[in-house]
Amino acid sequence: MAFPIPKTQTVALVRTLGGPVEFIDDYPIRTPGQDEVLAKILYSGVCQSDLHTRAGTAAGADGNPITAIKLPHIGGHEGVGRIIALGPGLGERDPSIQVGGLVGIRFSSRVCRRCEFCLKGEEQYCQGVGIKPTNHLHHEDGSFQEYICLDAGYITLLPPDVDAVLAAPTLCAGLTAYKAVKNAEVRPGQVVVVVGAGGGLGQYAVQYALAFGARVIGVDGGQQKHDLVSSFGAEFVDFRECPDVVAKVQDLTSGGAHAVIVAAASSAAFSQAASMLRIGGTMCLIGIPPGGGHIDTTVAEIVIKGITIKGNLVGNLGECLGAVELVRTGKVKPKVFVRPFRDLPNVYEELEKGDVAGRVVLKIGGDPGPHM
Amino acid sequence: MAFPIPKTQTVALVRTLGGPVEFIDDYPIRTPGQDEVLAKILYSGVCQSDLHTRAGTAAGADGNPITAIKLPHIGGHEGVGRIIALGPGLGERDPSIQVGGLVGIRFSSRVCRRCEFCLKGEEQYCQGVGIKPTNHLHHEDGSFQEYICLDAGYITLLPPDVDAVLAAPTLCAGLTAYKAVKNAEVRPGQVVVVVGAGGGLGQYAVQYALAFGARVIGVDGGQQKHDLVSSFGAEFVDFRECPDVVAKVQDLTSGGAHAVIVAAASSAAFSQAASMLRIGGTMCLIGIPPGGGHIDTTVAEIVIKGITIKGNLVGNLGECLGAVELVRTGKVKPKVFVRPFRDLPNVYEELEKGDVAGRVVLKIGGDPGPHM
Amino acid sequence: MAFPIPKTQTVALVRTLGGPVEFIDDYPIRTPGQDEVLAKILYSGVCQSDLHTRAGTAAGADGNPITAIKLPHIGGHEGVGRIIALGPGLGERDPSIQVGGLVGIRFSSRVCRRCEFCLKGEEQYCQGVGIKPTNHLHHEDGSFQEYICLDAGYITLLPPDVDAVLAAPTLCAGLTAYKAVKNAEVRPGQVVVVVGAGGGLGQYAVQYALAFGARVIGVDGGQQKHDLVSSFGAEFVDFRECPDVVAKVQDLTSGGAHAVIVAAASSAAFSQAASMLRIGGTMCLIGIPPGGGHIDTTVAEIVIKGITIKGNLVGNLGECLGAVELVRTGKVKPKVFVRPFRDLPNVYEELEKGDVAGRVVLKIGGDPGPHM
Amino acid sequence: MAFPIPKTQTVALVRTLGGPVEFIDDYPIRTPGQDEVLAKILYSGVCQSDLHTRAGTAAGADGNPITAIKLPHIGGHEGVGRIIALGPGLGERDPSIQVGGLVGIRFSSRVCRRCEFCLKGEEQYCQGVGIKPTNHLHHEDGSFQEYICLDAGYITLLPPDVDAVLAAPTLCAGLTAYKAVKNAEVRPGQVVVVVGAGGGLGQYAVQYALAFGARVIGVDGGQQKHDLVSSFGAEFVDFRECPDVVAKVQDLTSGGAHAVIVAAASSAAFSQAASMLRIGGTMCLIGIPPGGGHIDTTVAEIVIKGITIKGNLVGNLGECLGAVELVRTGKVKPKVFVRPFRDLPNVYEELEKGDVAGRVVLKIGGDPGPHM
Repeated sequence: MAFPIPKTQTVALVRTLGGPVEFIDDYPIRTPGQDEVLAKILYSGVCQSDLHTRAGTAAGADGNPITAIKLPHIGGHEGVGRIIALGPGLGERDPSIQVGGLVGIRFSSRVCRRCEFCLKGEEQYCQGVGIKPTNHLHHEDGSFQEYICLDAGYITLLPPDVDAVLAAPTLCAGLTAYKAVKNAEVRPGQVVVVVGAGGGLGQYAVQYALAFGARVIGVDGGQQKHDLVSSFGAEFVDFRECPDVVAKVQDLTSGGAHAVIVAAASSAAFSQAASMLRIGGTMCLIGIPPGGGHIDTTVAEIVIKGITIKGNLVGNLGECLGAVELVRTGKVKPKVFVRPFRDLPNVYEELEKGDVAGRVVLKIGGDPGPHM
Repeated sequence: MAFPIPKTQTVALVRTLGGPVEFIDDYPIRTPGQDEVLAKILYSGVCQSDLHTRAGTAAGADGNPITAIKLPHIGGHEGVGRIIALGPGLGERDPSIQVGGLVGIRFSSRVCRRCEFCLKGEEQYCQGVGIKPTNHLHHEDGSFQEYICLDAGYITLLPPDVDAVLAAPTLCAGLTAYKAVKNAEVRPGQVVVVVGAGGGLGQYAVQYALAFGARVIGVDGGQQKHDLVSSFGAEFVDFRECPDVVAKVQDLTSGGAHAVIVAAASSAAFSQAASMLRIGGTMCLIGIPPGGGHIDTTVAEIVIKGITIKGNLVGNLGECLGAVELVRTGKVKPKVFVRPFRDLPNVYEELEKGDVAGRVVLKIGGDPGPHM
Repeated sequence: MAFPIPKTQTVALVRTLGGPVEFIDDYPIRTPGQDEVLAKILYSGVCQSDLHTRAGTAAGADGNPITAIKLPHIGGHEGVGRIIALGPGLGERDPSIQVGGLVGIRFSSRVCRRCEFCLKGEEQYCQGVGIKPTNHLHHEDGSFQEYICLDAGYITLLPPDVDAVLAAPTLCAGLTAYKAVKNAEVRPGQVVVVVGAGGGLGQYAVQYALAFGARVIGVDGGQQKHDLVSSFGAEFVDFRECPDVVAKVQDLTSGGAHAVIVAAASSAAFSQAASMLRIGGTMCLIGIPPGGGHIDTTVAEIVIKGITIKGNLVGNLGECLGAVELVRTGKVKPKVFVRPFRDLPNVYEELEKGDVAGRVVLKIGGDPGPHM
Repeated sequence: MAFPIPKTQTVALVRTLGGPVEFIDDYPIRTPGQDEVLAKILYSGVCQSDLHTRAGTAAGADGNPITAIKLPHIGGHEGVGRIIALGPGLGERDPSIQVGGLVGIRFSSRVCRRCEFCLKGEEQYCQGVGIKPTNHLHHEDGSFQEYICLDAGYITLLPPDVDAVLAAPTLCAGLTAYKAVKNAEVRPGQVVVVVGAGGGLGQYAVQYALAFGARVIGVDGGQQKHDLVSSFGAEFVDFRECPDVVAKVQDLTSGGAHAVIVAAASSAAFSQAASMLRIGGTMCLIGIPPGGGHIDTTVAEIVIKGITIKGNLVGNLGECLGAVELVRTGKVKPKVFVRPFRDLPNVYEELEKGDVAGRVVLKIGGDPGPHM
């Protein structure tokens, strides 16, 4: 069970908000504390939020940029690693955590277990009673590094037989989409529209909605995204070609969709979503546009159609494992592009242009395997 | 059981949208059809919607004014009457409908029973399969007249021991507030903020939320509304005196309210509601501002705080009877001002100024009593 | 649109409870009343309840036999027919009902629209305010006849492109199973056990649970049922071969199923269901054993495991159309055996032995087609 | 903040199941470990479960007696204490835990935070991933001692201004009843029947149901219980005087109650509960009779009336704090009898006879107060 642990590692460092991503090759590797594990990171998805955090444009609940970000910062919050060392005595105290196991690096990093949100199993909203909660997006270094120490008390143990490449983006993009679909309470025979269906978040929303038995209509632009969305078994409306997307959706659904999941982080996308809804329908918001974004829906429409609008910030750990389980069993097969770790700056550029059909996953390091 | 039925009656007629209310004293009284009852109207509440319909400023789901309104039109959709005659054979076919019974005149007038919304008990959203649904606000004459024919198939039979004056505004304002409180799923120990707490809708929202066991904070302006809201057992924040209402609510609730019910039909009120909410909280929209109204809530706030926004258009008949039951048993005691029928034009003016603490109810006609 | 309507028809008549089924060939055909349609019946499923009603062994809520059954009686409550005539003036009053349309004959026949259950869209439990509710099992003649008059006000209009043979048993067996799956609130990734998985009810429960995204384990006996259940994509446990079915299910599910749907009408089946459940799981009861049946589950087990037990009597009309929709789109493909009308007595015998893998559907008469 | 901690204490020890309660005065006091606090116990309620555990008659989920009980054992699982010492470094690591604070001793003692039940906020059902969960009823010594060490990671911090005497029984009896009322999803205007309304559990169920706005009918026997139940504002049916309790409830409710909470731990009580229910009603089971108890409800009744039966084992920590909050604000005022610690054996005898109207709370020790 012994595994050689180097002293230093390569990390993708951001020294100032808005500054470049620098690859540092002699960054120190921490020794795991008593309640921590050390993991070697295998893969990490790249999320729009990483991009915004780096750029200093991530919007807070008040719409203003979030500036309280640890600097220098290492991004990445949808990573999968292999546990290669345990903190002192941890293995005896908790035999369920073992060297060799797969582990996730997620948005939520440390939670208090005591605030009202932790107590009802919504620890992603932890407000910190006793201890300050942290996440890998703002307060702690994330998965764009080769090694990481993780809190054993709130660890994301993954099933040994899940594909690490596919699990990685499921930890944030997948979870967020899964939770939105769950929030929408869709049933077989109902129709779900996913706006931004071909992107990293949207492709998950499409597939989870299908897994829930819904008929799914994806809205996005371009042949590549058309092909991707169709390959999952969903219908597709190309907003670049369709003069009136709302009318098209109303037509395809005889009165509107039961749910619209807005996975596109553009205010324009939100504007149309309510009008695509059936009476009594639900709009789920999961992407945050730069600047915070606005919904151009009238109060009249919300009231007269009896609409529900729900937002969700990722989901909890239990839901995360639920999202992963559907990937493990092959019901959801995220489209990923594996790229080398050092491609991160290029990936950021591509994401900014918005032309990724699926999700980019960085290969961070080689897998030592479960048996060491 | 014979009751003298005159040939003509007094009605409050609107001939053109934006035109005046005219009192006509020789308006004909219809004879009830086979599936109808004839009721003598006792009281009718006056709702903001009546005002907007008359003015031609009622906003539709698309934010544009609703123009498809029967003209000339008789407003009024929260009336209580006494059944004084039955359509041919109705009493034999349905012994539960009897002359002498109390009956409500509500927003919904005729529903199809066959569309998907009727089938799931949300007939207020009826889309009309087979027959065209109607309501008393746009398609049929309402309760600002002395006599009315009502569909026996969708009749609102009221308990004989309810106070007709208090029941009247409960049929629309009360129901709408009741449904919003129900939608908010509040539990004892939770905090509900009602914005516009001292108005016709708001006073109901305050009292229903209290009946559900919640702690309630009312937001409104002026001593009169302060006194009214306090008399129900709720706390009060006066927006005319409090420099930062959002901060005040956050302070009183240690982190925000579990639900905010926006009963004020002003866009400004909506703007602050989300910021008054606790993480995971619910905002219920029930009033429609002229022009449709807008919510100045960012997508970021909805997502990061995991907020839900729900609209509801009144409620169904079963919920209406539930709202009435709490008035009948005295748990909810709406503040009403009884005014003569012919005061309607003045009432409209006062409503436009927004200075009514409670609800105005017009006395339309004398009560022949249950035994005739 | 004219269609020849004969004066008499063949019906399967039961003159006394416990007596034989007699085929009468000169039974009169009723003329549809003002609010009725006349349908020519094409197919009818055969349900255990028909068997019990005929035998006089159908248990009521109090466990005693239901004796208030119309006699002589014509059974059948999952039929599909073609509308061949409309009551006087009906077509003008309601253009959505047309000669040539497909129509269902279901358990619920006439409902009051006014009792608390009708008002909340659970009209299958109608208690009759004003009018007495009826069903085709106890109070009105059902689908084991060639022609039937149906209430136009509570009509089950079916989509024109559904397969009438498959739609028929969906109207009762399918609906009942669909509602149970809906009640169980299963999500993708959860496990549903169906006890009696290969029978008429059970096969639907298996397929609807799969449509909801669940992993399904069917429990039943024999190779024929094994083959059927496996063909849907579910796992199978044969109680004839497995010495400890509960242990097997616990093993397959690592702690028990999220839901167990008991579609077998035997008390023995209920006894084991709770022990198959995961903590917090739900047991859905849909079959009624002769004598009423008993659950041998201790209070201790229900409390300590936090179990929920739910019963449902078919479902409402909206849910029925939801169940049919999944058959129409091919997501659910019930296994049916089409048999001649006059085979009914033999079918009853086979049902009593319990050896039908799937559902028997009687071919009652030829289809005149939608265009007449 | 220094508080003198003696070396030994008085405890109520049970050496063998079925054996007597012995008071030992020189029992050692543990020193709190790194993640523990030491509390001086002020009060402890006495629960039927303590009685059964001592007697060796506590039924497990399988109906058999639970025999895996720590021996010798100190009972008590609804205690309130004052924190008088913290484990090494705890105060610095978690400033929210302070000497002088009120703390609860509850059923659940240590939970894993990682099993599926912990992850969804139902940690009372913890199955133990990594660490073995414990409770104070079977695995750890409870509140029938003067001093106790408690896990700081799953601590029940109580508000400083709650009455410790009233809080104590709320931690188990109150929580269990609160959760049942929550499970029943009762709304104002609905009727809740509490069977065993005057006992320790029942009095809470009555008051929480009233707090939720319900109309409540209590069923129990004798004038003392009649007086208690009536004092809360509920109606009362005395089963000793009423020849047909079911008929009486049906009569009082015009068709049955929306929910029946069975707080009486006798199988006879369960038998009647379903028949007291309205169609679609919910039966909540919270007491466990010796031997496990049986429900004599037919499958037919559950199916035909569409009944739901729910069991719950106490509730989670968040719900516990919710239950306590309603006691703190005076909405729920449990009737308690304070008795000296050494009266425990007598209290057990009285409980066995079942003649306690309210809850007995033992005064375990004096309160050092919040400021030390």
